[in-house]
Amino acid sequence: MKFKRTERIGAIVKILSDNPNKIFTLSYFTNKFNSAKSTVSEDLLVVKSVFEKLKLGKVTTIAGAAGGVKYIPKASEEENDEFLKDICKKMNDENRVLPGGFLYLVDIIYNPSIASKIGKIMASNIDYSEADYVVTMETKGIPMALMTAKAMNLPLVIIRKDIKVSEGSTISTTYVSGEGSKIRSISLPRKAIKPNSKVIIIDDFMKGGGTIKGMIDLMTEFGAEVVGTGVFISTSKPKEKLVDNYVSLVELEILDRKSTLRPNLLKK
Amino acid sequence: MKFKRTERIGAIVKILSDNPNKIFTLSYFTNKFNSAKSTVSEDLLVVKSVFEKLKLGKVTTIAGAAGGVKYIPKASEEENDEFLKDICKKMNDENRVLPGGFLYLVDIIYNPSIASKIGKIMASNIDYSEADYVVTMETKGIPMALMTAKAMNLPLVIIRKDIKVSEGSTISTTYVSGEGSKIRSISLPRKAIKPNSKVIIIDDFMKGGGTIKGMIDLMTEFGAEVVGTGVFISTSKPKEKLVDNYVSLVELEILDRKSTLRPNLLKK
Repeated sequence: MKFKRTERIGAIVKILSDNPNKIFTLSYFTNKFNSAKSTVSEDLLVVKSVFEKLKLGKVTTIAGAAGGVKYIPKASEEENDEFLKDICKKMNDENRVLPGGFLYLVDIIYNPSIASKIGKIMASNIDYSEADYVVTMETKGIPMALMTAKAMNLPLVIIRKDIKVSEGSTISTTYVSGEGSKIRSISLPRKAIKPNSKVIIIDDFMKGGGTIKGMIDLMTEFGAEVVGTGVFISTSKPKEKLVDNYVSLVELEILDRKSTLRPNLLKK
Repeated sequence: MKFKRTERIGAIVKILSDNPNKIFTLSYFTNKFNSAKSTVSEDLLVVKSVFEKLKLGKVTTIAGAAGGVKYIPKASEEENDEFLKDICKKMNDENRVLPGGFLYLVDIIYNPSIASKIGKIMASNIDYSEADYVVTMETKGIPMALMTAKAMNLPLVIIRKDIKVSEGSTISTTYVSGEGSKIRSISLPRKAIKPNSKVIIIDDFMKGGGTIKGMIDLMTEFGAEVVGTGVFISTSKPKEKLVDNYVSLVELEILDRKSTLRPNLLKK
């Protein structure tokens, strides 16, 4: 089958965009389109300019034997600001306040487009160049962690809140969550993370940081190093968290029992 | 900013491919590219041909006031067969057998690329034209259910295994899982599903069908109708499930304590 230049370009964009951070060799495309290397190289220049002009991320060329091209998703700052502003407006809707002052947010954080966008923002603000896994804890953080893992082209690991007999040998630990009041246990199959790995932790919410701290401790048990942490919402108080280095996209402030969420890209 | 034809086509492919089943008006593109309607119409013809030639799904035009174009992901049957064959080979690896005969599969079903592919296959085999939500139960089904919801452009709803005080008023029910031995309770916030909705249920595994039946019963409590069910793996025995209509992608057969998974696209 023969492809026109416009068709080849459309196809390359589709393939790269569906597979962020995956390297495709020049031969992959020359075979697919039955075209010369020079032709595909010219196509790739156009593809690069599409991504740059529309601020959709970057297409980079990797030299060498294992070389090729890959697409690094990176949304523009204005677009991210716009998105976070818009989502905070939705989350601040009075009808979302539940008894006890909780906010009903699952329809938002489980939404595939929103989770996907959060994943891309996480990938734009956390250095994952050395990371081997994205790690989260069930349940609410899973959709955004999965989408972060997709954007970073990394496998996802989900920590469970109890020990599952169906997952073989597990390593578990306990942590204190919710302002020192509850002791919880979490576990992960031994096979889930290879020794000496580097991981990125993603979760939907952080108050004191106890849960994230529990995840970091569990990673230590696996001989893994946490090289980045991203939370969607963090509370303004307590200011001192149990975790030092993290990225947070939205700040939750509670004043006189009224919760307000605002975009606040924190990098600590 | 001015765009060349090749750049416009690349950009349209990116936008449609990132937003399956979302309708984009012609004006959306004419504004974005600062181009005439006739120009964008010609671009769209090329885009349609890219998707068709490479069997990446379909780009269709919707007429009328709310009209525009949308991208319907639909992988080719050969590609799906290839994928399922390949994944079954991986899952049948002897090292995956755990004590008790369980199989270690979480690294596979949590993998973002695999979950995404499963989601597209679900969307290619389940009629979701009338559906309002994709529903799953925590935890293992979440990644593939999220990706199915993304492909279908529907919101995702996650049923929890216990009642969460932080989610307000909930509706819960009990069901019998695992060959009549265990009674489990599941719950969902009242706000999660609007009355008279139609839903698609997605889960990773079905043996007797008790869990799916529990989810269907819970949907009845919400006044919602289940219009499609998709499971990734279903067991060959028992042949009679508690659920009548479902799509299953992989069959698990247990003979003499040995598990074998094989691609078997079932539509019951």
